Amino acid sequence: MTTPTNPRLDDLLSTRARIGWGASAPPARPVAEALFEFGGGHPDPSSFPYEGMIEATADVMKAEGAPALSYGEPQGYKGLRELVAHKYRLFENLEVPTDNIIVSNGSGHALSLAFSAFVDVGDPILSEAPTFSGTLATIRRHGARVLDVPLDAEGMDTAVARQQLEKLRSEGKLCKLIYTIVNFQNPAGPTMSRRRREELIALAHEFDTLILEDDAYGELRFEGQAHPSLYALDKGGRVIRAGTLSKILGAGVRLGWLCAPRQMIPAFQGFLFGGGVNPYVSRVATFYMRENLVPHVARLVDIYRLKRDAMLKGLWEVLGGTDVEISKPEGGFFIWIKLPTGTKIEGLREAAVKSGIQFTWGPAFYANGGGEGFIRLAYSWEPPERNYEGAKLIAQAIKNAR
Amino acid sequence: MTTPTNPRLDDLLSTRARIGWGASAPPARPVAEALFEFGGGHPDPSSFPYEGMIEATADVMKAEGAPALSYGEPQGYKGLRELVAHKYRLFENLEVPTDNIIVSNGSGHALSLAFSAFVDVGDPILSEAPTFSGTLATIRRHGARVLDVPLDAEGMDTAVARQQLEKLRSEGKLCKLIYTIVNFQNPAGPTMSRRRREELIALAHEFDTLILEDDAYGELRFEGQAHPSLYALDKGGRVIRAGTLSKILGAGVRLGWLCAPRQMIPAFQGFLFGGGVNPYVSRVATFYMRENLVPHVARLVDIYRLKRDAMLKGLWEVLGGTDVEISKPEGGFFIWIKLPTGTKIEGLREAAVKSGIQFTWGPAFYANGGGEGFIRLAYSWEPPERNYEGAKLIAQAIKNAR
Repeated sequence: MTTPTNPRLDDLLSTRARIGWGASAPPARPVAEALFEFGGGHPDPSSFPYEGMIEATADVMKAEGAPALSYGEPQGYKGLRELVAHKYRLFENLEVPTDNIIVSNGSGHALSLAFSAFVDVGDPILSEAPTFSGTLATIRRHGARVLDVPLDAEGMDTAVARQQLEKLRSEGKLCKLIYTIVNFQNPAGPTMSRRRREELIALAHEFDTLILEDDAYGELRFEGQAHPSLYALDKGGRVIRAGTLSKILGAGVRLGWLCAPRQMIPAFQGFLFGGGVNPYVSRVATFYMRENLVPHVARLVDIYRLKRDAMLKGLWEVLGGTDVEISKPEGGFFIWIKLPTGTKIEGLREAAVKSGIQFTWGPAFYANGGGEGFIRLAYSWEPPERNYEGAKLIAQAIKNAR
Repeated sequence: MTTPTNPRLDDLLSTRARIGWGASAPPARPVAEALFEFGGGHPDPSSFPYEGMIEATADVMKAEGAPALSYGEPQGYKGLRELVAHKYRLFENLEVPTDNIIVSNGSGHALSLAFSAFVDVGDPILSEAPTFSGTLATIRRHGARVLDVPLDAEGMDTAVARQQLEKLRSEGKLCKLIYTIVNFQNPAGPTMSRRRREELIALAHEFDTLILEDDAYGELRFEGQAHPSLYALDKGGRVIRAGTLSKILGAGVRLGWLCAPRQMIPAFQGFLFGGGVNPYVSRVATFYMRENLVPHVARLVDIYRLKRDAMLKGLWEVLGGTDVEISKPEGGFFIWIKLPTGTKIEGLREAAVKSGIQFTWGPAFYANGGGEGFIRLAYSWEPPERNYEGAKLIAQAIKNAR
């Protein structure tokens, strides 16, 4: 017998596994000790359809019990793909064949399928800066080189996007995809204008690249005008769109999807490793949602609008008169704050910890540095009165941190 | 505006996405038109706990409704990891801390986490030949170079494994891992002997590699002696073990796990893209299983033993007297048949289609060619009397195909 030895993980790990090896991950759930959970994009727990899910389970067991507990279709439960098509028809007047939809374990997983299908370690992509920190973790894991594109009130700055694409072309490199969050951009807040949407699509065609359109919150619009999705506007099969039930049903079901040109579906499916995605919970969620989609979403819009307004009220009551900039998103879960000039971040963080306030610091949303003068607050988890109370506390902490 | 153009997918796809691009995947569900579904490893639908899942859902909603519908722990629901530890204690007298367990979307996904963590395109691994076709698809997608190791009645031939490892060493290459199915090997049938298990672990230490131990069926043992798992026998943190609820609860829940040295857990977790694995169905399955694990598994053992015996009876009644070789696995879902000398595969396939019999042809289980003279039959899906009837039909087709 050989003497037992510990494996040399440094030699055995894959290139992608080595990325960030040894670093710790941010919390994925509400922080238990937080008094005010303004950190993650956690849906409102009081809105979950607890009874509805029990009833839907009984309906599923009666109608489709054996398939619910068996391996499923590789592309995902057809009933759920029909529900997604129904949702697009209802909310956006958009017709999508179910063959163009592939189900995933939440939209984070959906995005990872797109990165796996198109990105090799070192490949360039474009992304808004700032952008969602969770997606940045997924992008990093795939080893993509991220070229930043800033945003303004109309969303991604397409003039800068063009410069970045031209720069890559001059290097002889192909941009693999452009990642964008089109509605209530996370974290910065703007909805991309119609004009910018058309410019971005034209860029994708001109530079022979793809667009990965992330839209986790689109239905949760409180006010303002919705624009057609990039997927709907495109005419040449270059837009992949990610969606999710997390924000309109509950994140615990882990159901998302990609809606994409049909020829790409096999490329994504190759990275689903066996058994079909969640045949059981796909059916339970579908049976609940197809009876309740419209009234449930309408109820959520009212809930989150109140929550946003309560937080904004608390922030402005204390910070009015400073040169703070506070986003007012037309939907979604987040407020983005440019701190007043001279705010000392360390002081703010200490005060926030003391008051039990969880928030996310700006640099988490930048692939290549930046964001030190910003914070993101989520108004989705706490009830309105807690949003108001906590907002006043953190606003006071901001004011004091100078 | 630029003129719309179709994307050049050939230029845009990642290296891994290009593997097998254009090939079609085998069916993941029972084939609807099959009269006798002997193809895939589909659990028995009459054994599913339909009522139990409805009750468990009501219990979950009462006890843990909000976390069930929210984002979950990155490593997986702790209650499920406790259930896995409980199962190991109960069935194998093995103590595993919950920190060493990471939850996945079924064991196929669990295996993919291990390949993602350790395998770059071109990296060598060792695997039994034949081995499970689903894992071969996952291995291919990761671009691993598979070195074959044959089996005999004691499982993987460790003498050949040594030769392969020595060959790699002489090439200056590190074997990333050794993939093995230890119990009722799929498809060939043998359970790895105690002696071979110890030899394989010694090889992993001597050649500084890892072992990926796949054990989806271990609890479903009808007879014969169970041996300690490789994970239990190892003393140096080189064994990663994959398990699943698919075969003892239902594949539709998509719940599997890796049980591994704790230092490796972050490497696997890096390839779980957001939100925690199935917080909802993890709870429903756990609440059902922790009340019913032992009696439910005992019932399944009786069910599948009967099914195996019915199929074996049908096969031998017709094929007795030929030089056919038919495995008699001590558990699991599959029978492996070495066809009688001179069997013409085309004739057999045509006759099987005519009789509506779905089966899997040997080459599906070989990474580097081989298996033409073999077929695999699954006895798990059809009831015993259908196994008997269908087995006689395919046995007759085999007899005629000469």
